[in-house]
Amino acid sequence: MDKLIYLTQHLRIKIYNMQITANNPNRKSWIEVPKNSDFPIQNIPFGVFITKDDIITIGSRIGNQVIDLGALQQLGYFKDLKLAEDVFLQDTLNDFISHGRKRWRRVRNRIADLFDSQNITLQNKPELLEKILFHIDDIEMLLPVNIGDYTDFYSSIEHATNVGKMFRDPDKALLPNWKHIPVGYHGRSSSIVVSGTKIRRPKGQILPKGAQEPIFAPTRLLDFELETAFITTDGYRLGESIPIEEAEEHIFGMVLMNDWSARDIQKWEYVPLGPFLGKNFATTISPWIVTLDALEPFRVASPEQNPMPLHYLQKSKNHSFDIHLQVGIKPNNSIETIVSNTNFKYMYWTMNQQLAHHTVNGCNVRSGDLFGSGTISGPTEDSYGSMLELSWGGTKTIKLKDGEERKFIENKDTVIIRGHCKNEHIRIGFGECSGKVIKAN
Amino acid sequence: MDKLIYLTQHLRIKIYNMQITANNPNRKSWIEVPKNSDFPIQNIPFGVFITKDDIITIGSRIGNQVIDLGALQQLGYFKDLKLAEDVFLQDTLNDFISHGRKRWRRVRNRIADLFDSQNITLQNKPELLEKILFHIDDIEMLLPVNIGDYTDFYSSIEHATNVGKMFRDPDKALLPNWKHIPVGYHGRSSSIVVSGTKIRRPKGQILPKGAQEPIFAPTRLLDFELETAFITTDGYRLGESIPIEEAEEHIFGMVLMNDWSARDIQKWEYVPLGPFLGKNFATTISPWIVTLDALEPFRVASPEQNPMPLHYLQKSKNHSFDIHLQVGIKPNNSIETIVSNTNFKYMYWTMNQQLAHHTVNGCNVRSGDLFGSGTISGPTEDSYGSMLELSWGGTKTIKLKDGEERKFIENKDTVIIRGHCKNEHIRIGFGECSGKVIKAN
Repeated sequence: MDKLIYLTQHLRIKIYNMQITANNPNRKSWIEVPKNSDFPIQNIPFGVFITKDDIITIGSRIGNQVIDLGALQQLGYFKDLKLAEDVFLQDTLNDFISHGRKRWRRVRNRIADLFDSQNITLQNKPELLEKILFHIDDIEMLLPVNIGDYTDFYSSIEHATNVGKMFRDPDKALLPNWKHIPVGYHGRSSSIVVSGTKIRRPKGQILPKGAQEPIFAPTRLLDFELETAFITTDGYRLGESIPIEEAEEHIFGMVLMNDWSARDIQKWEYVPLGPFLGKNFATTISPWIVTLDALEPFRVASPEQNPMPLHYLQKSKNHSFDIHLQVGIKPNNSIETIVSNTNFKYMYWTMNQQLAHHTVNGCNVRSGDLFGSGTISGPTEDSYGSMLELSWGGTKTIKLKDGEERKFIENKDTVIIRGHCKNEHIRIGFGECSGKVIKAN
Repeated sequence: MDKLIYLTQHLRIKIYNMQITANNPNRKSWIEVPKNSDFPIQNIPFGVFITKDDIITIGSRIGNQVIDLGALQQLGYFKDLKLAEDVFLQDTLNDFISHGRKRWRRVRNRIADLFDSQNITLQNKPELLEKILFHIDDIEMLLPVNIGDYTDFYSSIEHATNVGKMFRDPDKALLPNWKHIPVGYHGRSSSIVVSGTKIRRPKGQILPKGAQEPIFAPTRLLDFELETAFITTDGYRLGESIPIEEAEEHIFGMVLMNDWSARDIQKWEYVPLGPFLGKNFATTISPWIVTLDALEPFRVASPEQNPMPLHYLQKSKNHSFDIHLQVGIKPNNSIETIVSNTNFKYMYWTMNQQLAHHTVNGCNVRSGDLFGSGTISGPTEDSYGSMLELSWGGTKTIKLKDGEERKFIENKDTVIIRGHCKNEHIRIGFGECSGKVIKAN
């Protein structure tokens, strides 16, 4: 290896090691963190929020307090971190994400330090804190990034097998390319919305069973897809690729995602070019981007791959994370029922493989691009990530706690996706990714 | 109809009629326009350019002179047109496009007036003109818009039939949905480049004939797709649709497009979710956006549709344009051969239908979004819009003027797409959409 490259890599690793303080499980914050909160001081996620005075700024969160990072920057607390001026006084995280992994880590560590119970810099300084802290109920979360491009993968072997069984040959459920390629497709960026945004039931062309001609109607088979998504920083120029072992340098963090789907519209339109209007009416993401750094303690192996994929997809370390995921359905004015419990670790293809594959042809990625996992289904019937699978194509009924039954999603239902990691020391979570369905126009 | 709505629409139409002066075929410019130029004073397209001093600004073009619209605005020539300050001193047209059709038309008319041979405002004023005019050879054209989302349709019945015959059942070449839906899919925005950008041959997974396992290699079947694309202004909020009769209010203009395709990568990856790495390595567009207004004299009927599409796709007037299109291949250091001559008017689905369909489910569009036509093939063998069709899946050889032969595109080939409209009075064209292929990394 070239000596300079070796030295640079060595130094880079050293800097990272020096900077990993934010994850210290013994840290406590002087901000109160409720039991089972997704947001202990070890999380330090990033998001964008708007205050009651209509001021938009970038924030982090501990417990139920949102930290105004723009205010912290203006007050000089990031002065030595070599950030672009006003990088947090923006309405998206794209510029901050462009700063790269070293600075993400330094900022996250600094925030952890400032709010550590051992640190008196801000503690008990009400005149400062009224500029810096907002209760979560007093602000509204916005979309955290300007998403240039959105790609959705199809990387759960359980989901792909279930769909293949239902719609194609049950004995050849997986298509021949599936175990060689992290199959994916391009989605629509403009209709990605933040958790809490109402979802209008889409209308479209549907081919009724046995009919020769389509009709135009509101979808009758509205579905969720339980997914996670990762957000990148800038990759290389068009024509260059991101090697798999470098992929995590380009991944800022993760969110939860609901890839809303209209199964009847999708079924009629999708050959030969893939999903279109059956998907692009809305995609919901959770507002807080949880960094890969925060997820580091929960790194696990992904499933063994057989056959071995081509060299550019081969991995030398653990690339997955142990993230518990669940979906709840809450009918109007009623109680919520959890209809699925699953885990990110079941995913056959990892984020690193997805990113290496996506760029292997020279396709470029940019800061703020979003990459969905595909529906995350587990191995058991109660761990499937869509109503399509839970109701097995509408042949089974899901009973809700309030006595209601569902095969697909009804008007005024709220679908809530949650996710968290947990070990004996800490729990790091994503908050909620929720959306309430309203009737078609 | 509600009286107020009627009145508003009536007024709107009146304003448009008052403002249609730029298309006057008798106008001549005091700027010299070479014979057969695509850019007479009746065109007035919009683009973005960079000067030798690295100044980026928005321009128009007459003959071989590029007009600095930022300079014209600073000098006060658009003062009464109610434009946002410095709207032309930007590196994309998105904000100008957001101004809407009335202001596009007013600006285009104003430019036509300023450069009309009857007008002495700028004529023979070298001290002014050195700030305003640049010879096309002294500047470089950039991507005209920041493309939020890129959709590609599949709207040529000849192309869809040819592909269906080659890859599926020759007797059932068109899939059942094709005549009901303007089939489309989402493409990648990040890899859309302006004419002149070199195109690196992509690498990817390919399943060799008869093999069970894919290999990793540079594509052997690199292809162009002759397309046009339209660019929109903002539509409505998520959840609302653009009615077909209103679609042209949201279409700013058109460009030429080459949807570069790697047929072997595409073939292996595309089931079930559609084209991905076989397409997203690069898409080239021409730099000048020709407005729908400029194309107005060339409006023609699109092919009759049978069966009649669903109501939201039914049209009451002519929606197509008579645009001659051609593709040339120029091997390295050699002469160009025109390999295809076709016409936009063959397209089965119109832009208005495409936009009405795209938004009928509530999907939102934004200023600067790009919508490709799909490969434009005509009815004859010399009017096909891709090498896949011209060489009939590689079974036929295309002879070039210099003695070379092609089935697909080779390294160092330049592919050049051109398009223009022509009547007895004027010729309105798009310039070139070209790209030279360089070897894989």
